Amino acid sequence: MTTVIDPLHTERPTDVVRRLLDTAKAEGRNALTAPEAKQLCDVYGIPVPKEGLATSAEAAVTLAEGVGFPVVMKIVSPQILHKTEARGVLVGLQNADAVRQGFEAIMENARAYDPGADLIGVQVQQMLQSGVEVIVGSITDPSFGKLVAFGLGGVLVEVLKDITFRLAPVSREEALSMLDGIQAAEMLKGVRGGKAVDHEALAEVIVNVSRLVDEVPEIVELDLNPVFARENGATAADVRVVLDFAARTPRYRPSQEQIVRQMNRIMKPEAVAVIGASAEDGKIGNSVMKNLINGGYKGEIYPIHPKADNILGYRAYKSVKDVPGDIDVAVFAIPAKFVAQALDEVGEKKIPGAVLIPSGFAETGNVEGQEEIVAIARKHDVRLMGPNIYGFYYTPKNLCATFCTPYDVKGKAALSSQSGGIGMAIIGFSRSAKMGVSAIVGLGNKSDIDEDDLLYFFEQDDNTQVVAMHCEDLKDGRAFAEAAKQVSKKKPVVVLKAGRTALGARAASSHTGALAGNDRIYEDVLRQSGVVRARSLQDLLQFARGIPVLPTPKGENVVIITGAGGSGVLLSDACVDNGLSLMAMPSDLDAAFRKFIPPFGAAGNPVDITGGEPPSTYQNTIRLGLEDDRIHALILGYWHTIITPPMVFAKLVIEVKEEMKAKGIEKPIVASLAGDVQVEEAASRLYDHGVVAYPYTTETPVAVLGAKYKWARAAGLV
Amino acid sequence: MTTVIDPLHTERPTDVVRRLLDTAKAEGRNALTAPEAKQLCDVYGIPVPKEGLATSAEAAVTLAEGVGFPVVMKIVSPQILHKTEARGVLVGLQNADAVRQGFEAIMENARAYDPGADLIGVQVQQMLQSGVEVIVGSITDPSFGKLVAFGLGGVLVEVLKDITFRLAPVSREEALSMLDGIQAAEMLKGVRGGKAVDHEALAEVIVNVSRLVDEVPEIVELDLNPVFARENGATAADVRVVLDFAARTPRYRPSQEQIVRQMNRIMKPEAVAVIGASAEDGKIGNSVMKNLINGGYKGEIYPIHPKADNILGYRAYKSVKDVPGDIDVAVFAIPAKFVAQALDEVGEKKIPGAVLIPSGFAETGNVEGQEEIVAIARKHDVRLMGPNIYGFYYTPKNLCATFCTPYDVKGKAALSSQSGGIGMAIIGFSRSAKMGVSAIVGLGNKSDIDEDDLLYFFEQDDNTQVVAMHCEDLKDGRAFAEAAKQVSKKKPVVVLKAGRTALGARAASSHTGALAGNDRIYEDVLRQSGVVRARSLQDLLQFARGIPVLPTPKGENVVIITGAGGSGVLLSDACVDNGLSLMAMPSDLDAAFRKFIPPFGAAGNPVDITGGEPPSTYQNTIRLGLEDDRIHALILGYWHTIITPPMVFAKLVIEVKEEMKAKGIEKPIVASLAGDVQVEEAASRLYDHGVVAYPYTTETPVAVLGAKYKWARAAGLV
Repeated sequence: MTTVIDPLHTERPTDVVRRLLDTAKAEGRNALTAPEAKQLCDVYGIPVPKEGLATSAEAAVTLAEGVGFPVVMKIVSPQILHKTEARGVLVGLQNADAVRQGFEAIMENARAYDPGADLIGVQVQQMLQSGVEVIVGSITDPSFGKLVAFGLGGVLVEVLKDITFRLAPVSREEALSMLDGIQAAEMLKGVRGGKAVDHEALAEVIVNVSRLVDEVPEIVELDLNPVFARENGATAADVRVVLDFAARTPRYRPSQEQIVRQMNRIMKPEAVAVIGASAEDGKIGNSVMKNLINGGYKGEIYPIHPKADNILGYRAYKSVKDVPGDIDVAVFAIPAKFVAQALDEVGEKKIPGAVLIPSGFAETGNVEGQEEIVAIARKHDVRLMGPNIYGFYYTPKNLCATFCTPYDVKGKAALSSQSGGIGMAIIGFSRSAKMGVSAIVGLGNKSDIDEDDLLYFFEQDDNTQVVAMHCEDLKDGRAFAEAAKQVSKKKPVVVLKAGRTALGARAASSHTGALAGNDRIYEDVLRQSGVVRARSLQDLLQFARGIPVLPTPKGENVVIITGAGGSGVLLSDACVDNGLSLMAMPSDLDAAFRKFIPPFGAAGNPVDITGGEPPSTYQNTIRLGLEDDRIHALILGYWHTIITPPMVFAKLVIEVKEEMKAKGIEKPIVASLAGDVQVEEAASRLYDHGVVAYPYTTETPVAVLGAKYKWARAAGLV
Repeated sequence: MTTVIDPLHTERPTDVVRRLLDTAKAEGRNALTAPEAKQLCDVYGIPVPKEGLATSAEAAVTLAEGVGFPVVMKIVSPQILHKTEARGVLVGLQNADAVRQGFEAIMENARAYDPGADLIGVQVQQMLQSGVEVIVGSITDPSFGKLVAFGLGGVLVEVLKDITFRLAPVSREEALSMLDGIQAAEMLKGVRGGKAVDHEALAEVIVNVSRLVDEVPEIVELDLNPVFARENGATAADVRVVLDFAARTPRYRPSQEQIVRQMNRIMKPEAVAVIGASAEDGKIGNSVMKNLINGGYKGEIYPIHPKADNILGYRAYKSVKDVPGDIDVAVFAIPAKFVAQALDEVGEKKIPGAVLIPSGFAETGNVEGQEEIVAIARKHDVRLMGPNIYGFYYTPKNLCATFCTPYDVKGKAALSSQSGGIGMAIIGFSRSAKMGVSAIVGLGNKSDIDEDDLLYFFEQDDNTQVVAMHCEDLKDGRAFAEAAKQVSKKKPVVVLKAGRTALGARAASSHTGALAGNDRIYEDVLRQSGVVRARSLQDLLQFARGIPVLPTPKGENVVIITGAGGSGVLLSDACVDNGLSLMAMPSDLDAAFRKFIPPFGAAGNPVDITGGEPPSTYQNTIRLGLEDDRIHALILGYWHTIITPPMVFAKLVIEVKEEMKAKGIEKPIVASLAGDVQVEEAASRLYDHGVVAYPYTTETPVAVLGAKYKWARAAGLV
């Protein structure tokens, strides 16, 4: 029934865990008993109330001295279920005498209550001091695996769902970040004059829980609820552990080196085969051929066709096996039912990658068909992109391996989409905004290649400076998080996660599980991995476009310089919304700005130069903003006037920017242009020169700057 | 010290209030004592613990029977401050005997504790049953006046600032909406198997507090904290009342009839004077003249100039007083220092409105100058627009009374801005998007005419269907709220409130005050007034453009029909974000949709018709969506394919829409277009035909539909 204190730890920790699990499994249980769970906590350094069983008054005193006063004493008897009714419970016993008398009293009361009961003894338990009630727990997510959770305890927190998650195991720093990661974080810092709780002790509980669930795969859910967090220390008053003994098949993952080697051949091929190439207009195999040719791809193109000798001027082959040279990637443009056989040939030819445009697999319910091709690919070590995709673009190679229209504006943004429709939106937007792109990739059913493969490729691809991904699910969230964590240290990773709606109440037997909204996990894990999250399709596209244009800021001090006071207010709001820090203007700098602006203008921050000013006022203040070391980023608010028309403004900004660049000064500059339609051309000109500028919006330029900052912070650069 | 129960109410309620205030004022206090505050509560039907003073055991029993068992008894003696130490407190007395003995025991204990003490008697108080702790309070906002507040009690709620506000007084319905208006609303509905609190009783407390503060202007802050809300009833355990006896000057407000009469002459003038008209290019008075003339204004134009006889072909006058006919509005294009004298002449000429373009008043620190012109205007009953504005447009009269460029796309959206820069953004966006506009108005310093004047004008202006306003502050938030509440019943009112950043901790002596973030008040009051709040400049502009285009939905059932599954997911996310209800698809309708889509397409909602479908599939499913009575609004997701190109899609949607319109069926339709750049033209074509369509974004079309719904709900139409 109870844990006997074992100060000598005669049993090794791993043996304890094994014994507990074996017992539970043997008894067909999927949960540990409370005493078992407490033993587990003891082994992992998770503080629980100390307790023991005494069979004599003197033993009770020894135990009490061991656990520390005050103590609680309770009768232990299989027949006595209602201990309080039997007067078998005493609380707050302060010293040895009280414990000694308490033991006798409890035994006597129990005998009187039920003369026939077996009296095993009296449980002596450390009496917990109350504190701030928190919950520490763990769940097992189908995509992310073991997660550790932290939130305040109590019913109100369940109502508010104020809980934060991290991938297990976590470091001390990550655990501490969880304490700040809940809405009610102030509660832990001491309110109404109270003292702060022991952050280190609480972090240690979180770290140890995360280590426990990481090391013991069978633990699928765990609750410490409540944990009493005190000024000094933290103790879990109640522990629940849910087990699952079913074995899991680990996902097949090549090594990172292998991924990069294969992805490089697929994304930057020297030779491409088009399986199902066609000379007939309107066929997918025809579009793919034309896009390869008209896109300007310089490598070998091998059309594969059962009958044709020549397609669009290229020698055709019956099978990839007939092609004399090496092939790096095979693009499939044939119906689903023919894919398996052709893929087998691709494998025999040792082609490392297959781009599967055809639909008709898992997305239409044909799960077996998809499993079949995955098995073939695994056998031959062929990586699969798709099926059910538009293909992909890699502009540095002039490669349009897709049936969509070619895309040729080269640049530094790599984009991917799980959905074909979103892929088309990416292409249309890119063309319309002249967004410089290195790659656009369709992932479709993600039968094999997924976001983490792309991330490892783009990490080492010098043509890519930012990765922007649309995804609906992550087949292996943990692998994605690991890849993102590594890649985002070097290059910004932006993710639009579609399907944010909570999956509804999940069948969970733990509090932690019930609190785990699907999106909250994505939110926390993506942030933990250094990912910049896009909240909308437009955000994804604008971040992809703007982030590579802006230099990385060297500090947090943002200054707004505006001709329109009204824009200044909205730009300030946008700074708050996007987590940017408006610099508190030092008085010397304030004075320096004031020299350039009218007496009724406002220095401070925003610097309001007022509306009727000539170009020189904009120019002088922007120059000052760039020159002064204490300022790290500029937000410009332009107001269309006769005295400083839009294109004049654009030119002067570009001039100052170039002048400073020549002196080695580069800072991110974004701009919001308020005015008549001429501001559209001015914004476009500014963008072309590295100033992220938009007409008719104060929020978008600041959001792009905010995204750059979010990445720079996560990467430790600012 | 204590309130004697007065069941007969010998004193009239108003007399009680007056007596309490007079006493406080006479004693130089700015707060009521706890017993005074409780008397106030008694008068206003706010439940507080009943209590009374007993000087004998029998009197104590009578009192206890009056307040109801159980009771608390406490010694009352000026000399005994530590009542518990004196053993002068008893709690939980359940019957007459216990009270009788309790009285004797307390008196005896007190005598023993301090034989020299004056024993006034024993206070007998109703013992409160605990419940859910909530706070009900009131503050006085400089703009909105008396507000009533509701939130959960306790320290956690202070940390989370989970509190909601309404203008006082509130109706029972509004009070009930406050209970649902906090994040933690679930707490009141009973959690973990607990029972719900008494919503009616709690609403009554809120209603009565709101009535109290409304009727007693001197009460500037009030806290009931905590109020114990139980399954049956609610009682305020503690009451704090803060007073301010300083008199307030009410703001000058003409009657609504007068406002409308004057605003109609100003906005739809038959004759306009331009004070400071000029023939010289580059002068503001020249731009105003040209805009009036070139804009096509058909009324009389009177240039006013000290010397000229004729300006741009119009006879000029030295003063408005020299003009023979009536003048409806005078546009000022002269420096600030000449405004006062010219305004006096405008007043003498009985011109009802002056449009003050000049800057150089309060915005540059010249507060006296502004006060001077306001006084002149008030003397002559002239309404002032500005100063420090670009002027205004009223397109149905071809009137461009501004120095900016003319605007001529007539339509149903009226816009206003407090800032000139934002005004220019409105003009540029409108022109770029071909937004149909009835009016664009600059409000600038708002020395007189403000948003509420405009609202009353636009309410009765048949050329306006939606009002969209940018504002930084509301000089009289209460008047605005009243106007908005009235107008939004007929026409949507959209507001972009700039300056959302909390003003920081305000010096407040109440909990309610400390919890009142400035923006939270705006949020709640704007919603209470039926206003649709825009979160960004783009939202303001897109809502103004889209709301008049969409018919008002007749119910909440929204259906998504999409060619791209990926768009469907993002559109669903956007529905959640914008408070739209995706209809649960009835099985017969599901079957009807399935008839048109491929077997692997998904019916349900979204209806995923899959990407490779011909125009007829879009057409059939959209027709079904419009024809079926149970569906109230459609969201379309288009995916660019060869088989259904963008313009084909646009045409088919317009065709079905027109076909249904001929049958009398009109429902709001919005569309998100994913594809190559041709989708831009398709979106534009759709918009021109009443389908709110956007390329490269899933969120904006749904946000516009959401805005239409928000208004329709507030106006009671859906």
